Amino acid sequence: MTQLEKGRQGKITQEIESVAKAEGIHPEVLRQRVAEGLAVIPANPNHRGLVPCGIGLGLRTKVNANIGTSPVFPDWQTEVEKLEAALAAGADTVMDLSTGGDVKICLREILSRSHVPVGTVPVYEAAVRTREKSRPVVEMEPEELFAVIEDQAIAGVDFMTVHCGVTRRIVEGLKQRPRLAGIVSRGGAIMAGWMLHRGEENPLYAQFDRLLEICREHDVTLSLGDGLRPGCLADATDWAQLQELMVLGELVLKAREAGVQVMVEGPGHVPLNQVQANIQLQKRLCHGAPFYVLGPIVTDIAAGYDHIAAAIGGALAAWAGADFLCYVTPTEHLGLPTGEDVREGVVASRIAAHAADIAKGLQAAWARDEAMAQARRELDWGKQFELALDPEKARQIRRERNPFDQEVCSMCGEYCAIDLVNKYL
Amino acid sequence: MTQLEKGRQGKITQEIESVAKAEGIHPEVLRQRVAEGLAVIPANPNHRGLVPCGIGLGLRTKVNANIGTSPVFPDWQTEVEKLEAALAAGADTVMDLSTGGDVKICLREILSRSHVPVGTVPVYEAAVRTREKSRPVVEMEPEELFAVIEDQAIAGVDFMTVHCGVTRRIVEGLKQRPRLAGIVSRGGAIMAGWMLHRGEENPLYAQFDRLLEICREHDVTLSLGDGLRPGCLADATDWAQLQELMVLGELVLKAREAGVQVMVEGPGHVPLNQVQANIQLQKRLCHGAPFYVLGPIVTDIAAGYDHIAAAIGGALAAWAGADFLCYVTPTEHLGLPTGEDVREGVVASRIAAHAADIAKGLQAAWARDEAMAQARRELDWGKQFELALDPEKARQIRRERNPFDQEVCSMCGEYCAIDLVNKYL
Repeated sequence: MTQLEKGRQGKITQEIESVAKAEGIHPEVLRQRVAEGLAVIPANPNHRGLVPCGIGLGLRTKVNANIGTSPVFPDWQTEVEKLEAALAAGADTVMDLSTGGDVKICLREILSRSHVPVGTVPVYEAAVRTREKSRPVVEMEPEELFAVIEDQAIAGVDFMTVHCGVTRRIVEGLKQRPRLAGIVSRGGAIMAGWMLHRGEENPLYAQFDRLLEICREHDVTLSLGDGLRPGCLADATDWAQLQELMVLGELVLKAREAGVQVMVEGPGHVPLNQVQANIQLQKRLCHGAPFYVLGPIVTDIAAGYDHIAAAIGGALAAWAGADFLCYVTPTEHLGLPTGEDVREGVVASRIAAHAADIAKGLQAAWARDEAMAQARRELDWGKQFELALDPEKARQIRRERNPFDQEVCSMCGEYCAIDLVNKYL
Repeated sequence: MTQLEKGRQGKITQEIESVAKAEGIHPEVLRQRVAEGLAVIPANPNHRGLVPCGIGLGLRTKVNANIGTSPVFPDWQTEVEKLEAALAAGADTVMDLSTGGDVKICLREILSRSHVPVGTVPVYEAAVRTREKSRPVVEMEPEELFAVIEDQAIAGVDFMTVHCGVTRRIVEGLKQRPRLAGIVSRGGAIMAGWMLHRGEENPLYAQFDRLLEICREHDVTLSLGDGLRPGCLADATDWAQLQELMVLGELVLKAREAGVQVMVEGPGHVPLNQVQANIQLQKRLCHGAPFYVLGPIVTDIAAGYDHIAAAIGGALAAWAGADFLCYVTPTEHLGLPTGEDVREGVVASRIAAHAADIAKGLQAAWARDEAMAQARRELDWGKQFELALDPEKARQIRRERNPFDQEVCSMCGEYCAIDLVNKYL
């Protein structure tokens, strides 16, 4: 039975208990939200060593880090290092998006070393397997795709992104309603290409019940992918995106009915003034399902700094109700990230999540900032480092930029406002 | 005569002409805004080589970079390097906040090399001069302060931050209404300490007319400083901050009456959900004067990454109507920034400004993002670098993270969505 099914039966599972404790809320409150599908706990019983984590209404905003090999960088060892960087930086979940080298071993290694929930996009492994047989990706057999989904569920994957909402009708409709950036989701593009090539319906949509069966058996949380998310500001909140969102909203109900935990993914590239509307639309059309946004980035021209563009959009999105932020790294749109990029990406997303949690009124978030203000006033550096989102980086800057040992810092020195105020006020 | 006075007389100055052209608006529209004080053009005739820049209603959101020596890092040469870093990164203005070494030479060097408007906080130089005479800062003579203001105006400073709104009444009132972080503005703390020590009114407030005379003579734009800005989220939008803001609103009218260009400075540390209110309050209470915000940072715990916390707050602030963003660097709260920190800070602020300009409907901002989307769809890398906010950084990442020469990038390689879509859609 899934967390959702047990929750519905009134059972406070060990996972609900543990998440409620971490969040500082009553287990019964969380149980009810899980039972109603307003929160999810991606916790595949096959994932050994997992520390459960909740995503959804009233919970701390969570941050995901995407890692994984690519054809150009196929070594799984490097991705294990990125996993460690992501965990050290405070990622709440990771996704293995490998498409290079031995993707099966990479996933196994990540699962065995990650105490946080691990997600995948199974169509990637299916695509790799298809290419290994020297066939184009669009000739993938649905059976192959479902075999990967089942394999990964058995391996212990906690949540899976599946692009079920990219239907034939919408992709056909897209031809009459061209977009500036077309389709930029890899999974979305594969499914669209597949449908156009084979002239058949998306198997993830046509055989959604089969998908649900696998997920129910292993309590894999479905993350309904936004294969038609906008790839530039000009495409945001358009016909294709909303058509897909409405399909996803219907699939949310089907998943819940089948006892499967489900969340919904969202954009992507969104102008600042459309972020809130996007969250409200998703919450309404998808019946309050937890919302997992990629970024969103609020400008297309920040290449090299897209983690900052994503932090802006992510803060606004989470404040408006998004529950789960997928990080973006400085190398987005340019190449696969390094471990250092992973760290930068996670911290940027955590800043956004934390700022939003304060705006949403989460007591624990507010209390930490108050404690930091106190430490600053007292020029208590040890305490300041302890309370910083990235203590190591803060400590390093203080060390490098303060050659002399003094209580104040090298920006103001003897003109330190805090020091002056402590003296005269 | 100042730009404001000339504008009032119906004259379209060379500066108005040049700014209007850069902004793509009609010079007459800009003239009217300058005449009404809704926009300013900080352009001291003594600043040779200045390319004028407009700040205010309907104009592109501008970004300022703070540079300057400190007692620990007194070399002006390093600050000239930071000036170059700031200009290369696209700063619209710089402020020389020097408090170490020969601050007079530093300012002269920065003025002579900067084609963008240069601002100062004259009380810093006055404090340094006082300390040179082995007297505590709080024993500074008002005459010494006004002498510095006049010197700097003659030297060609385009705008000056003066903490005129930190009055005796408010500082006394602060004793009954304690704050978590007290006063964190250096200038604010100096003025507060001075008043408490001497038992006299803030000379910048008491002799505001004298200040106006100097500014009018050299067309120095006043930037009314927020000496009582909150130093932590818990102090945001409190009694002291709003009392000061109301004083500044009255001084705005006095300045305009005297023909002096004026803008108003704002916080600081502000929770996400109070940013918009802060902008609306300022615009209302300060009669539409251009608003210059420091950040704002939306959490206190991002030490080492405060440029990101500031980009979040800055984007929201500029979207809500702030006209001018003061950057924050990664070393804020920890030490004086390096040149690399300056660059990171400027780019982060520019992302915020640009995202807000798109949300505010600035055509040129939108057009650039559309062009980037087009370049991405065509996998035209040269064009993408050209359109990026920091072409050099984008080019560097592409080079470092793509060992093989291929049209797609190393994140997806042969699974590139754009490539798939171009093939099948």
